[in-house]
Amino acid sequence: MNPITTKLNVDNLLLQALAEDISSEDVTTNAVMREAKQGTAQLICKQDGVIAGMDVFKRVFQLLDESVKVTMYCKDGDEVKDKDLLAVVEGDIRAILSGERTALNFLQRMSGIATYTRSVAELLKGTGTKLLDTRKTTPNMRIFEKYAVKIGGGYNHRYNLSDGVLIKDNHIGAAGGVARAVQMAKEYAPFVRKIEIEVENLEMMQEALDAGADIIMLDNMSPEMMKKAVEMAAGRAETECSGNVTRENIKRITDIGVDYVSSGALTHSAPILDVSLKNLHAL
Amino acid sequence: MNPITTKLNVDNLLLQALAEDISSEDVTTNAVMREAKQGTAQLICKQDGVIAGMDVFKRVFQLLDESVKVTMYCKDGDEVKDKDLLAVVEGDIRAILSGERTALNFLQRMSGIATYTRSVAELLKGTGTKLLDTRKTTPNMRIFEKYAVKIGGGYNHRYNLSDGVLIKDNHIGAAGGVARAVQMAKEYAPFVRKIEIEVENLEMMQEALDAGADIIMLDNMSPEMMKKAVEMAAGRAETECSGNVTRENIKRITDIGVDYVSSGALTHSAPILDVSLKNLHAL
Amino acid sequence: MNPITTKLNVDNLLLQALAEDISSEDVTTNAVMREAKQGTAQLICKQDGVIAGMDVFKRVFQLLDESVKVTMYCKDGDEVKDKDLLAVVEGDIRAILSGERTALNFLQRMSGIATYTRSVAELLKGTGTKLLDTRKTTPNMRIFEKYAVKIGGGYNHRYNLSDGVLIKDNHIGAAGGVARAVQMAKEYAPFVRKIEIEVENLEMMQEALDAGADIIMLDNMSPEMMKKAVEMAAGRAETECSGNVTRENIKRITDIGVDYVSSGALTHSAPILDVSLKNLHAL
Amino acid sequence: MNPITTKLNVDNLLLQALAEDISSEDVTTNAVMREAKQGTAQLICKQDGVIAGMDVFKRVFQLLDESVKVTMYCKDGDEVKDKDLLAVVEGDIRAILSGERTALNFLQRMSGIATYTRSVAELLKGTGTKLLDTRKTTPNMRIFEKYAVKIGGGYNHRYNLSDGVLIKDNHIGAAGGVARAVQMAKEYAPFVRKIEIEVENLEMMQEALDAGADIIMLDNMSPEMMKKAVEMAAGRAETECSGNVTRENIKRITDIGVDYVSSGALTHSAPILDVSLKNLHAL
Amino acid sequence: MNPITTKLNVDNLLLQALAEDISSEDVTTNAVMREAKQGTAQLICKQDGVIAGMDVFKRVFQLLDESVKVTMYCKDGDEVKDKDLLAVVEGDIRAILSGERTALNFLQRMSGIATYTRSVAELLKGTGTKLLDTRKTTPNMRIFEKYAVKIGGGYNHRYNLSDGVLIKDNHIGAAGGVARAVQMAKEYAPFVRKIEIEVENLEMMQEALDAGADIIMLDNMSPEMMKKAVEMAAGRAETECSGNVTRENIKRITDIGVDYVSSGALTHSAPILDVSLKNLHAL
Amino acid sequence: MNPITTKLNVDNLLLQALAEDISSEDVTTNAVMREAKQGTAQLICKQDGVIAGMDVFKRVFQLLDESVKVTMYCKDGDEVKDKDLLAVVEGDIRAILSGERTALNFLQRMSGIATYTRSVAELLKGTGTKLLDTRKTTPNMRIFEKYAVKIGGGYNHRYNLSDGVLIKDNHIGAAGGVARAVQMAKEYAPFVRKIEIEVENLEMMQEALDAGADIIMLDNMSPEMMKKAVEMAAGRAETECSGNVTRENIKRITDIGVDYVSSGALTHSAPILDVSLKNLHAL
Repeated sequence: MNPITTKLNVDNLLLQALAEDISSEDVTTNAVMREAKQGTAQLICKQDGVIAGMDVFKRVFQLLDESVKVTMYCKDGDEVKDKDLLAVVEGDIRAILSGERTALNFLQRMSGIATYTRSVAELLKGTGTKLLDTRKTTPNMRIFEKYAVKIGGGYNHRYNLSDGVLIKDNHIGAAGGVARAVQMAKEYAPFVRKIEIEVENLEMMQEALDAGADIIMLDNMSPEMMKKAVEMAAGRAETECSGNVTRENIKRITDIGVDYVSSGALTHSAPILDVSLKNLHAL
Repeated sequence: MNPITTKLNVDNLLLQALAEDISSEDVTTNAVMREAKQGTAQLICKQDGVIAGMDVFKRVFQLLDESVKVTMYCKDGDEVKDKDLLAVVEGDIRAILSGERTALNFLQRMSGIATYTRSVAELLKGTGTKLLDTRKTTPNMRIFEKYAVKIGGGYNHRYNLSDGVLIKDNHIGAAGGVARAVQMAKEYAPFVRKIEIEVENLEMMQEALDAGADIIMLDNMSPEMMKKAVEMAAGRAETECSGNVTRENIKRITDIGVDYVSSGALTHSAPILDVSLKNLHAL
Repeated sequence: MNPITTKLNVDNLLLQALAEDISSEDVTTNAVMREAKQGTAQLICKQDGVIAGMDVFKRVFQLLDESVKVTMYCKDGDEVKDKDLLAVVEGDIRAILSGERTALNFLQRMSGIATYTRSVAELLKGTGTKLLDTRKTTPNMRIFEKYAVKIGGGYNHRYNLSDGVLIKDNHIGAAGGVARAVQMAKEYAPFVRKIEIEVENLEMMQEALDAGADIIMLDNMSPEMMKKAVEMAAGRAETECSGNVTRENIKRITDIGVDYVSSGALTHSAPILDVSLKNLHAL
Repeated sequence: MNPITTKLNVDNLLLQALAEDISSEDVTTNAVMREAKQGTAQLICKQDGVIAGMDVFKRVFQLLDESVKVTMYCKDGDEVKDKDLLAVVEGDIRAILSGERTALNFLQRMSGIATYTRSVAELLKGTGTKLLDTRKTTPNMRIFEKYAVKIGGGYNHRYNLSDGVLIKDNHIGAAGGVARAVQMAKEYAPFVRKIEIEVENLEMMQEALDAGADIIMLDNMSPEMMKKAVEMAAGRAETECSGNVTRENIKRITDIGVDYVSSGALTHSAPILDVSLKNLHAL
Repeated sequence: MNPITTKLNVDNLLLQALAEDISSEDVTTNAVMREAKQGTAQLICKQDGVIAGMDVFKRVFQLLDESVKVTMYCKDGDEVKDKDLLAVVEGDIRAILSGERTALNFLQRMSGIATYTRSVAELLKGTGTKLLDTRKTTPNMRIFEKYAVKIGGGYNHRYNLSDGVLIKDNHIGAAGGVARAVQMAKEYAPFVRKIEIEVENLEMMQEALDAGADIIMLDNMSPEMMKKAVEMAAGRAETECSGNVTRENIKRITDIGVDYVSSGALTHSAPILDVSLKNLHAL
Repeated sequence: MNPITTKLNVDNLLLQALAEDISSEDVTTNAVMREAKQGTAQLICKQDGVIAGMDVFKRVFQLLDESVKVTMYCKDGDEVKDKDLLAVVEGDIRAILSGERTALNFLQRMSGIATYTRSVAELLKGTGTKLLDTRKTTPNMRIFEKYAVKIGGGYNHRYNLSDGVLIKDNHIGAAGGVARAVQMAKEYAPFVRKIEIEVENLEMMQEALDAGADIIMLDNMSPEMMKKAVEMAAGRAETECSGNVTRENIKRITDIGVDYVSSGALTHSAPILDVSLKNLHAL
């Protein structure tokens, strides 16, 4: 992760998570360890997968104690195996003990998302279709989860409601039609925005194309209808397939030719990747 | 959720999540809907499960616009079925559109945890063993996830490092033995704390009992060893079984007689429960 | 201004500005006015111009005392004249006195920008060229200043570094060429982003077109070169003219046919519009 | 700027401005520059004026990356000329690119205010009258703008409503007269405060003097009336002339003998001083 | 307390104190009281004294639950007696239970300060000397403690280092003498500031007078020397006596004729006034 | 104080206190000291007592300027005497001057509490009764005050409402009896919590014992009744004596045999310990 991103937008979240876990003090550690004592521990993988969040893992400890050193034996995006040594943490044992859980909570979740994303993205290999995430992220974890999707080989859809235009059914209704909605969005939104619109049938598809939409989301269409919609687009707009896409059911859309397929499951239902801090001992 | 908890410790997190999703403005909605317009939408269940987070769902909209009304047709802890109408949201369509994703992101995750917890807790029915969560929660989501565990029929372990004592291997090493570690913790920690200590074998078990520990965590022991440890405890201390317990493997410990079994999977790997806002239309 | 935008992203800034002006208490008012006393005051225009920020003006008072009423006699975007009555404020005189300066500081600056923008935008009338703002805004005032530009008839460029891609000289150098830079941006940036690139001569213009850039910024080019660049674009990319454009010198580019011209002066050098709170008296 | 002021009250505002510009990440830079790369750039003046804010300029970069070095070739208060080299920035090009706009936005505005203030202050040279700023500052920019006024040769009026007493018309009305208002302020305000009161005619002037006001603001008086008021003061109180004073009209009051003249234009209408970061290249 | 002061600068501190006491939830109350239940309780005085902080007491409950009603039977500054009924609180019992301790912690401390201040101020009655507080306040409690001093009949010295000038020994040394220090302060500080300087002997006293200091602090002088210093001042400057003044020893300075005497003990060593919430019961 | 506790939960409060004292800048210091100048000062004790807060004292200066050095000649818990040299501060005089008051405000209060606590704790020596603090702490100072109690030889009761269960009269009423209240608390609270309940007579005492309460608070009982209650407990529960216990009246309960006695006076009415920064001079 870029160090500037970290300083401006990640550190606050890491500190907030640390304070969630240490609302006054680490009672146990403070009870038995009154003085600093150097120690070391190993970050061990306990499951095969794709690692993501190594910089975040490291940063958590350094926010507690800047003298903690983390030597890395892998980098984000690497395929890791059960029992792999991923990193060695070295520093005041109190910082290692107090930061362990928070650091792992981030790393496990991010790696879980990268692992799941990679497995889905591979099902799309050889097709021209790219895998997208959605805004179905865990609240206050979006920056980590969108990053993990990219590490896993997916692509990011808009970051949030402020930096992307996606005109849905109700927006169309409020505007008074597809053409008018696209026009209003072009007038209002910063001019660097692409205009995306959601359509449910081929009539709306045609309207959207005529209105000059940049991206057209094909919402819960049958594969056949999607195929026709993609043909209608004919390069005049990009197409995105959306609607409960998972690893299990993505096969049905791989030969349709949509430019993108978006899947909320990447961020809302990926199980964690099990990694663990082991063999902590004094130096 | 208690309204005082909400005001003091939940609202901030909801607003932070809303600001994550609307970092400047909801461009699409602002482009096409310049004026307030009353509308209504239905919260529909799309999967069987246990609902949790209805108050949070409601609060998200009301933080955007206090005049939004949410009529509830279920309450936290209810078993809900695919297609059930869970609630009706009524208010300015702009607030409904801008808050929808954030409200659902909370509700789906909390309900997913409650659903998974209930399914595990049921495997313990009839045994004297209670199901506990852990600190393996999503960063900055603990207050929601611990609540969801309780709704699902689980019990909460310590909230964080500040409000519970759990003496691990390294603490014991630093203190110079089990007896000394327990003693130091009793001296240091607020006197209302129970003292929990982690043991790996029966010798340590005996030491912990002699030292007067309140709770003894049996870490990664075989079922046989756990059984002996529980017999040794004989009511002098509570026992907790820990170590990669999931819905799939919990059977092996149900007849051992431990007081508690803790499972990180409740919070780190439960898939979401699919719920959706449907049929939004103007009034 | 949309009330949701206000709640999530504007109120904090208004409260911060109020706290800047009242770091402990309003000493003078508290010294002489121990009790609430209803009063009224008139918001009077003292210069011709375009008004912007009426909702912000009102909100400042209501954040101090929600019972303050502001009756508006104009709305954002209206052309106002010296001596016009713009609004009447009614409520506890203490709130009027304590909020007056902060409310006016926002309103004057926003209206100043809207006024200046309108005067420049009018010079572009009848051409196909649209007027854009830049990121040369006052620190921590961007949301107000970008809004004022729109009210004045301008269009918004990207909001910030996170929601727009603009590849400059140094990015091109780092990437190893125009084509590679555009490609890397397409790979990395959320797929809803348009890719803009800055070019300084016609060779780079050709490269950028070939690379598939969505927008090409013509940086400090002569009018002749710009004209050629626009012809080369031929609708394959949008063009933006940039470089010290002001009301005084914009004439030279009005017949070139660029799609957009951006001007930092809109936000960094517009003088305020003089408005004033007058005739405050008790009721 | 004093480093303690910076740490306590400036850094927060700089970080807030950086986060306004980088709400998640600098997409363009992160897309093409995955690794740190040392580079250098020159801060060049593009207009004659008075520089102010060099420490702020430097601090912005160092908050992004503490290893960035800024070598200064001028200091706050220096008169600078078009094309002057003001400073050289050296460090990771990513920090230079991501911080450039924010650093310049501060420096340009502060220097614009210093430049305008110097030009007005010079018109008062040789008179005994000092130039004051007002509270008509840009919201959340006061600490920077008041500093720039001092660098430009002006003096600061009260910082805000909490640290100065200024009794206006309505306060007098509420108190029940000039004498009573001054008395109430002396009773209530911290005893280190000078008491200032605004008067509109010579009767009020006399009352204010008799009441023991420390400073008397002559509000929108004619030059003749001001002259008489100053004679009445006769050193018993300081006098301040107020009311739409600008560079263009200040001449009319230079021979009146008031102690102070305050001008809102110093902070609300000074155009920026154009400075620019140039010649960025890798090392 | 003024409601605007409360909204801008007090509510944050009250909420912070509530969150200090309820870092996740009020476990006991939430365990046994799942639903709202109306109740009432009496605020009873348990010691004679001066009450201060009634609005703060009320506000604490209303920040938890805006429907809580507090009916007051006394107001700030009133002399209250053991067993007096001060107020009745009515509302959801959960809000009363959760807010009780925090509300009382504020009220007791503020009333303790008001009580102690009143007792000292009375020793000065009939002399021309006024009682001042200092900056020896409890961290993050200054706004409450300075207010309580005023309620008790004391006067406030400067609020903090930003809104008052007090030149001490080291400042004089750094400036190179009393005259130079006063001059530098007049040049630098906002012109509404009075200039106070600390002197230790009569030579410095003379210098300070000659330099035009507004206030002269007589630091740890003998009563005799103070008397001479006051005579030297002869109305040209105000005088302040400082140095370990308490209720017990203030007698020694009452006939010296200094304008002010400051006492840190008012805020740093006043014991609380005992008040208690009693007879809570359901309605 | 543990450095991790400091970073996560103390630094914020120190910075807040510094900002309370320096809301814009230290005007006096900035007026006369434009450049850094090395100096040194001595921390001198002016009263006998127990010192607490030396790390906090040091940290205040280092948050202003990390190059300030503090050499300590005592450590928390030491008995110090009038005139003892406690520490030497060395660094930029501006940081010493600007931080002095805040650093001392913390140190004096914490040491005052430690001193008072030690004097009370000594009255309990030789008895089996331990001295506890309460939640009657100064708002937003709890982490410092609870720490000082421990340094003084007391023990901490629960930190706040979230990390301890204490069932009072009204909770019992709401639950419908002692047994039911204890049962509900055990069901609801994290399982690591001890359950404490307040009783007023011996019937309730019996009920509480039967219900399995871990700790029983004997509220405002006569010494005789307390004695009986302790006999009834007979080791089945711990006992705590509560109710207006001070240094003056604690004698009456020293031979009763309760396990704990809690005293609000430790934190709400301890006078400060007088310490002072002296002999500041340039190097």
